[in-house]
Amino acid sequence: MSSSSSSVNVDLARERRGASIDSEDFARWWAGGSVNLEERRSLERYVFEDADLEEAVHPSCLSYKERYEQTIVRSTKFLAKLRQWHSSKQPQFSVSVDSLREFRVLLSGQLGTALFQQSFPLRLHFSMFLTTLLGQGTDEQLHKWLSRAWHMDGIIGTYAQTELGHGTYIRGLETRADYDAESEEFVLNTPSLSAYKWWPGGLGNTANMTIVLAQLYVKGRHHGLQPFLVRIRDEETHQPLPGIDVGDIGPKLGGNGVNNGFLGLRNVRIPRDQMLMKNAQVLPDGTFVQGRPPLLLYGTMVYVRVITLRDVLHGLLQAATIATRYSVVRRQSPIDESQPEVQILDHITQQVKILPQIARGVCYRLAADWLWNFYARVLEQLEAGAGQHSLPELHALSCCLKAVGTDEASEGIDLLRKSCGGHGFLSSANFDSIYGMATAAYTYEGEYTVLLLQTARFLVRQYTDSLKRKVLPVSVTYLRNTARLSWGKNLAENSARALEISALEQTRLAWQSQSMHRQRKLSEQQANSLSGRQLTAAAIAHAHAFLTRNALQDLERLRRGSLSPQVSAVLGQLVELFVLDTFLRQAGSVLRWNSVTGAQLRLVERRFEQLLAELRPNAVALVDGFDFHDRTLGSTLGSYDGRVYERLMAEARRNPLNQEPVNATFRSHLQPMMRGKL
Amino acid sequence: MSSSSSSVNVDLARERRGASIDSEDFARWWAGGSVNLEERRSLERYVFEDADLEEAVHPSCLSYKERYEQTIVRSTKFLAKLRQWHSSKQPQFSVSVDSLREFRVLLSGQLGTALFQQSFPLRLHFSMFLTTLLGQGTDEQLHKWLSRAWHMDGIIGTYAQTELGHGTYIRGLETRADYDAESEEFVLNTPSLSAYKWWPGGLGNTANMTIVLAQLYVKGRHHGLQPFLVRIRDEETHQPLPGIDVGDIGPKLGGNGVNNGFLGLRNVRIPRDQMLMKNAQVLPDGTFVQGRPPLLLYGTMVYVRVITLRDVLHGLLQAATIATRYSVVRRQSPIDESQPEVQILDHITQQVKILPQIARGVCYRLAADWLWNFYARVLEQLEAGAGQHSLPELHALSCCLKAVGTDEASEGIDLLRKSCGGHGFLSSANFDSIYGMATAAYTYEGEYTVLLLQTARFLVRQYTDSLKRKVLPVSVTYLRNTARLSWGKNLAENSARALEISALEQTRLAWQSQSMHRQRKLSEQQANSLSGRQLTAAAIAHAHAFLTRNALQDLERLRRGSLSPQVSAVLGQLVELFVLDTFLRQAGSVLRWNSVTGAQLRLVERRFEQLLAELRPNAVALVDGFDFHDRTLGSTLGSYDGRVYERLMAEARRNPLNQEPVNATFRSHLQPMMRGKL
Repeated sequence: MSSSSSSVNVDLARERRGASIDSEDFARWWAGGSVNLEERRSLERYVFEDADLEEAVHPSCLSYKERYEQTIVRSTKFLAKLRQWHSSKQPQFSVSVDSLREFRVLLSGQLGTALFQQSFPLRLHFSMFLTTLLGQGTDEQLHKWLSRAWHMDGIIGTYAQTELGHGTYIRGLETRADYDAESEEFVLNTPSLSAYKWWPGGLGNTANMTIVLAQLYVKGRHHGLQPFLVRIRDEETHQPLPGIDVGDIGPKLGGNGVNNGFLGLRNVRIPRDQMLMKNAQVLPDGTFVQGRPPLLLYGTMVYVRVITLRDVLHGLLQAATIATRYSVVRRQSPIDESQPEVQILDHITQQVKILPQIARGVCYRLAADWLWNFYARVLEQLEAGAGQHSLPELHALSCCLKAVGTDEASEGIDLLRKSCGGHGFLSSANFDSIYGMATAAYTYEGEYTVLLLQTARFLVRQYTDSLKRKVLPVSVTYLRNTARLSWGKNLAENSARALEISALEQTRLAWQSQSMHRQRKLSEQQANSLSGRQLTAAAIAHAHAFLTRNALQDLERLRRGSLSPQVSAVLGQLVELFVLDTFLRQAGSVLRWNSVTGAQLRLVERRFEQLLAELRPNAVALVDGFDFHDRTLGSTLGSYDGRVYERLMAEARRNPLNQEPVNATFRSHLQPMMRGKL
Repeated sequence: MSSSSSSVNVDLARERRGASIDSEDFARWWAGGSVNLEERRSLERYVFEDADLEEAVHPSCLSYKERYEQTIVRSTKFLAKLRQWHSSKQPQFSVSVDSLREFRVLLSGQLGTALFQQSFPLRLHFSMFLTTLLGQGTDEQLHKWLSRAWHMDGIIGTYAQTELGHGTYIRGLETRADYDAESEEFVLNTPSLSAYKWWPGGLGNTANMTIVLAQLYVKGRHHGLQPFLVRIRDEETHQPLPGIDVGDIGPKLGGNGVNNGFLGLRNVRIPRDQMLMKNAQVLPDGTFVQGRPPLLLYGTMVYVRVITLRDVLHGLLQAATIATRYSVVRRQSPIDESQPEVQILDHITQQVKILPQIARGVCYRLAADWLWNFYARVLEQLEAGAGQHSLPELHALSCCLKAVGTDEASEGIDLLRKSCGGHGFLSSANFDSIYGMATAAYTYEGEYTVLLLQTARFLVRQYTDSLKRKVLPVSVTYLRNTARLSWGKNLAENSARALEISALEQTRLAWQSQSMHRQRKLSEQQANSLSGRQLTAAAIAHAHAFLTRNALQDLERLRRGSLSPQVSAVLGQLVELFVLDTFLRQAGSVLRWNSVTGAQLRLVERRFEQLLAELRPNAVALVDGFDFHDRTLGSTLGSYDGRVYERLMAEARRNPLNQEPVNATFRSHLQPMMRGKL
């Protein structure tokens, strides 16, 4: 991050001098303490000093195949380097859920992003493959596979669930595994085109094993979806094995380093002990034994959603960092005609595009941390045989926060890109990759609308419980509070309360809609389906109510801790900005369900604008405090030194298309055309 | 469009049989009559039957350089073919503003899109280069250049205005042209890095001439921005000429076929007669003569905005066509658990993502047509020496409609992509290209916020005129109507009126904000700047008020014409859906400025949902009626036959990465890694 100040853009340097907060102070808090901060930085130094890991050509200039090959070259080197670092720090490493998680964080996170802006195929091996093996394999199976898998000794794995014709509705998956008791083998088939596995990362050309989710049949009887360990490519030659039809599914809006693949299976036989049997077993004679309900599996889904929320908020703050730095370097249009052009961040219309996104990212972080702690607590209880009662609340919160967080973070990233004008549109600015990664999360690991409906089902149930005067879980106690909004001096408190009332009333409306449809003799499911708009609106409103309330409460808690006065002050501004911004953005819902006067609204708007003005001088110091390395930002517009125009031009000159003064198509096509000879 | 019905997906075929409208009937109206429709179709047949114009590899798989080369190969062939067709139809062709426009429509529009989903470099020659030459060249200059330019006889042109460091604020452009009276030449320079021309399409490697906008200096005195005709590459060798530094600016979020370029000029000399002198002249001795104010130039900007609005609404409807067809082919999740999975368009949560976008596209089309007619009328008046009084209104409307239309169309395209789940994320679905082209328009030819502020300035002026009881232009007469909302039986009328009141009140609030800041002794410009949020909100509200009112009025007008009863009925549903949808989406603004009860809101919502149900059976017939050729849609998910899964798989198999069973990086990297040898 250090840079001799002489080479830093003068406007950017002046912003840093003029800030009232110390960005290092903020960075320490943001990173969770100076030890964490230093550890990350030293790992970054260790990795980034390796010239082999640099890219000779910007990946956006490469063909899809070249991009794949360069990703493999660089990611195998990165992995080797990381393992070295890792074993020097943890010589006694043993594979466990926690240790895998830590390693996964190293692979992805800011470091992985820095090297692979559109991800890389080997991540799935450590996230989904090893995790599933560990979670669903018996001790015997772990003994046989785990160590080899951890060391990638002849094994590169992935996880294949989604099919070409089936996603969300997993009961609809077609891939089947028929048990053949005679040979004690499973016979796997994708019986139709729509049954082809489709999407798994690394599956296309990289993995040689995969866990396949398939409908288990024993003697023609169905025993639900089970996980099977299937070798798909020869360990020595990497040739697809007999009966295996495998390949890459092609370029995407983002994540083009992932090598997402398809997989067809035709009478592929695997031994009985390659069904992962921790939760259910097939005995040699074909007897099916159902194990205990996989509560922890439920937990894994929650875990993935928390991680996703973290990933997208990091994407949002990367985008905000780029846009903020660009907005103090770029000058455009004077405010007073007699004066020079101003830094664009001096236009309030620019502040309003950027500063609320910073506030949003910070408050999402607070919510993600809260959710993580809740999750860890429940997990602990579950392992002790309790905690089941918290699962619905945890599930409901994780669903709506993942859905709303992903949607709004993507929207924010896109707005931040647009705030950078034409230059934001260039791949070298990197908004396109950041957006692609974030918006992918709208769909994967739980589609947006599907997740909202899950949350809504919980809300309506809690609402009817509240009518029966039952005790409600803490995150929805507001559903019992039927008091009208009483407007006080604290605008953030008014706003948070108004959002809670909106969520309560939206939930009530959804419940009424269901009841109305049921009175028309529709089934419960049809009534739910027809109430889809009201239900999703309720879940969105709940997310907003939770996010704002949590931010306000967390601020209080943090202030009781060891925040420096400067960080405390700026965090207070960010939280207030987030709460008022959410209130104003949700005005349609807020005004529908609360009586708020024009004068009160103007008060909120004025305070909102005042907060923009208060945060403006610290904007650069704040984004510096997120401490994204230039490599992680990967942006010509967002680097620490602010040398925007030099970097834009340097990146353009590096483009292979510019390496020869005249392209060959001049002689072959342009000249003949100009001579009328085409 | 014909396809043997046997090969059409059964669900899609059933939708077509079940529709109450005839898609051909709708198509004839949409195309502006059967002659237009047939003409377009026959041109499409003529072009698409040419196998040379097909793509062997999906462009998303190509490197940036390969994509450029393939685009040149195919676009020169396309152009030759088009000229053939054109000269067979118009043997007596002469270049004029109108004829150029017609040719430009052929180049872009549905045909150009079909061949070049991310555009192509030669378009700029016909749009900006020839248009500017024609509009700003003297008769003498036209005599010398126009015919050669039209025939591309040694000339491929583009238009260079924007600079690396300067866009919107054209007075800030740095490129200068100094007149040297001795040699009767202009000396052109880009005196700094930020002065480099940056963005012009085709400039990178294709164009050999460009019109350069530069600050004119004669004997050190500044005479504003003037257009200069500059040769940048040798006609015979295509080598950049001395003093010329030119290249491609690199990959982008979209439009990767455009070959956008940069241009540095160092003491580049051109003869005096290569300044385009229709509006201003430099005499041989250096005397500067200012011509008449270029009112028509103003008109050109309006023209470009109308065209942009049309382009983005076409993008929106392409996306809607793809999503609609996919949504009746894709089945997911039963509504009743005892039943099979339903077509996803049967979920109301899916209908609400798709049908309002169709309605929006259709109503934008009505607005674009209206604006076009208004523009043509004003142009006629201007040519007769009148019409100046209409320019501000025309300008203001074109600004906010371009801004809001582009923003909302992009948002709609993105939502439609997401409505297709994971498959929508694939490049083969083509949402990425459609989105890239649409969202680019957010910035080019007038940046979103800048345009809104232009409209707002007009609105505030009209509002203060209304206080003085002056007569207002027709599109803003509602600013004088201070009556409160009186809720009647006609929900669409209530909604449109509520949106007008919101626009009026937002304008009033912006004016009050300006006044408040001015009372604090700020300059008018500072007060405007600080009122940026209120001003942009007013312009957005005005756009919504205009769009809804115009749709309702146009519906009446069209119904007095020759619409078939079926088309009239479905158009009525679309207009009503658009108006109610706008009302509900703008609820924050509507509820702030109107008193609408909860019961009234529920009425609107219920009617909105009823309209979704009414339109559902005609969804496929409707999008068929937009008559996008499969090549124009360019989507595995949206083709006429609905063979979604076959096409997804076929496109995946075509990927160069899948042409060999084992990629070379297995031996070089994956295997060594698995053996611990990396």
